[in-house]
Amino acid sequence: MRVLTVTLNPALDRELVVENFTINNLHRVKNQKYSIMEPGGKGINVSLILSGFGIPSIAMGFIGGYIGAVVESRLRNLSDLVTTNFINVEEETRENITIIDPASDTITEINSQGPFVDKRDIDKFMKRYLVSLGRVNAVVISGSVPPGIPEDFYYLLGNTAKEAGKLVVSESIGACFEYAVKRGAFTVARPDLRSDQKLFGQDLEDLDDYVEAGKKIVESGAKMAILSYEIEGDVIATEEGVWFFKTHEHVERSHLLGTGDSFVAGVVEHLLKHPHDYLNAAKRGMAAAITEAAYLGKERITLDDVETNLTAFDISRLR
Amino acid sequence: MRVLTVTLNPALDRELVVENFTINNLHRVKNQKYSIMEPGGKGINVSLILSGFGIPSIAMGFIGGYIGAVVESRLRNLSDLVTTNFINVEEETRENITIIDPASDTITEINSQGPFVDKRDIDKFMKRYLVSLGRVNAVVISGSVPPGIPEDFYYLLGNTAKEAGKLVVSESIGACFEYAVKRGAFTVARPDLRSDQKLFGQDLEDLDDYVEAGKKIVESGAKMAILSYEIEGDVIATEEGVWFFKTHEHVERSHLLGTGDSFVAGVVEHLLKHPHDYLNAAKRGMAAAITEAAYLGKERITLDDVETNLTAFDISRLR
Repeated sequence: MRVLTVTLNPALDRELVVENFTINNLHRVKNQKYSIMEPGGKGINVSLILSGFGIPSIAMGFIGGYIGAVVESRLRNLSDLVTTNFINVEEETRENITIIDPASDTITEINSQGPFVDKRDIDKFMKRYLVSLGRVNAVVISGSVPPGIPEDFYYLLGNTAKEAGKLVVSESIGACFEYAVKRGAFTVARPDLRSDQKLFGQDLEDLDDYVEAGKKIVESGAKMAILSYEIEGDVIATEEGVWFFKTHEHVERSHLLGTGDSFVAGVVEHLLKHPHDYLNAAKRGMAAAITEAAYLGKERITLDDVETNLTAFDISRLR
Repeated sequence: MRVLTVTLNPALDRELVVENFTINNLHRVKNQKYSIMEPGGKGINVSLILSGFGIPSIAMGFIGGYIGAVVESRLRNLSDLVTTNFINVEEETRENITIIDPASDTITEINSQGPFVDKRDIDKFMKRYLVSLGRVNAVVISGSVPPGIPEDFYYLLGNTAKEAGKLVVSESIGACFEYAVKRGAFTVARPDLRSDQKLFGQDLEDLDDYVEAGKKIVESGAKMAILSYEIEGDVIATEEGVWFFKTHEHVERSHLLGTGDSFVAGVVEHLLKHPHDYLNAAKRGMAAAITEAAYLGKERITLDDVETNLTAFDISRLR
């Protein structure tokens, strides 16, 4: 095992293609092919992308009930390189439903909050986490936290791993993530700015705000901060400076699905081979994200694709 | 075992309560309690209602994949009186998603078609059906048929059971149902007129059309036809005449969910005890449906409730 991915709040991703979707009506989905059911949650996504790169991983987190069982068994079937090590909780794992209407070009999403996690579940997780930590070189902590998780939990996970000499990469947002970032618990931090362009209580408006946020993350103890800027750009901050990556080609908003997870997987893949080579790791991440953006579904990207896209964006130094 | 219920196309019913549901937006369902996941499909519903009456049943049909496994295991957990005997098919069992918005009082439904059933699956089903038939007094054949089912299949099931001396009750609609009704394969037939008020290629418009349709079903070989007329009425046709049942109290359209299945369960319950007492069986069915309409969820109705509601409607003779 090379990598441990943490997804505290996994999901069953359901994608339904419904033509002419309207409210207060009965719609019939005709073709089974138009109804996709995949394991979801950002850490799990990273595990699957890593498996496409030939990198084995252990997926950890909390799952519950019938939907949880579906997530776990689907995940096991999808790749031999992903080992599952989930703690079972009482309530049902959430299901994230996406209704895609190609006729009106709309995407309607219904996300559930996820099962409640209690103190006993958290203790069980922590014990297994410490055991698994001994078997990996890197830890990825990604996605939202379910109800019941204390604010310092991402800090605890990240800090414990860092102190054990592991690479720790996180993409998330919210109180738990910020608490950990402020205390330098992650080697690489990528705020998930998809739904809210806000960090440490401040709105990120112009490019300067992103640069300052990136610098703040590095000053707090991270080796690298990655902030997606608008659809086609990324601000990269390290101890050496701040850079701006921009894709050559225009990217559709609907193609952004999963690009953050690919970015993280690309960064991890490079840093496993070349520890401390942060800027080049970010370039691999960017190339992986661009590769992902070329796909609409959850097809697995390959290292060859990533290689090809290493020249698909411009790099300029900002600071 | 007293009853065999056939649900060729079961479903996992998902009910999501989403406040201010709008298209092209991301909605978050906050409370797990607002996300219901139950086994569905009309035959299965009848099995569950019968179990509330203390009547054991065998539930048969086709299920597949992860969702099928959830349906089967949920069903087993819900009642000790329901024995499952499903044939496994390759494709996924369908999930019927209902999005209820209490703020705007809308119900948006997305139903999938269901898995494809091939010749081999059908042969397997038929073998097991013949075995199970020997263990029951009545057969309920309800709901839609999945792709792959031949048009004469409901006829085959009904006719075989009838020739073996069983009571056969069916609530369904479409080619397969009409084929069987026209050939007298059911003892009691209740067309499912919820989405389309159409039978034998003709629109049912005024009460006379319903009376004629009911008479036609009886003339084709059924002992009783039951046709829901508008929201609060039912037309009952037997060899003795035609009656009209009408509830005293106003029923909301959103409370109709499951009332057809309760009607069928009430009819079956009565006919098991009093064979050939059709009109009184219809009264029990009507009382069961009215009881069901008083509930919004899938709570189990009791025989005491049914007893109470035997006087909750008027009966008038039409022919």
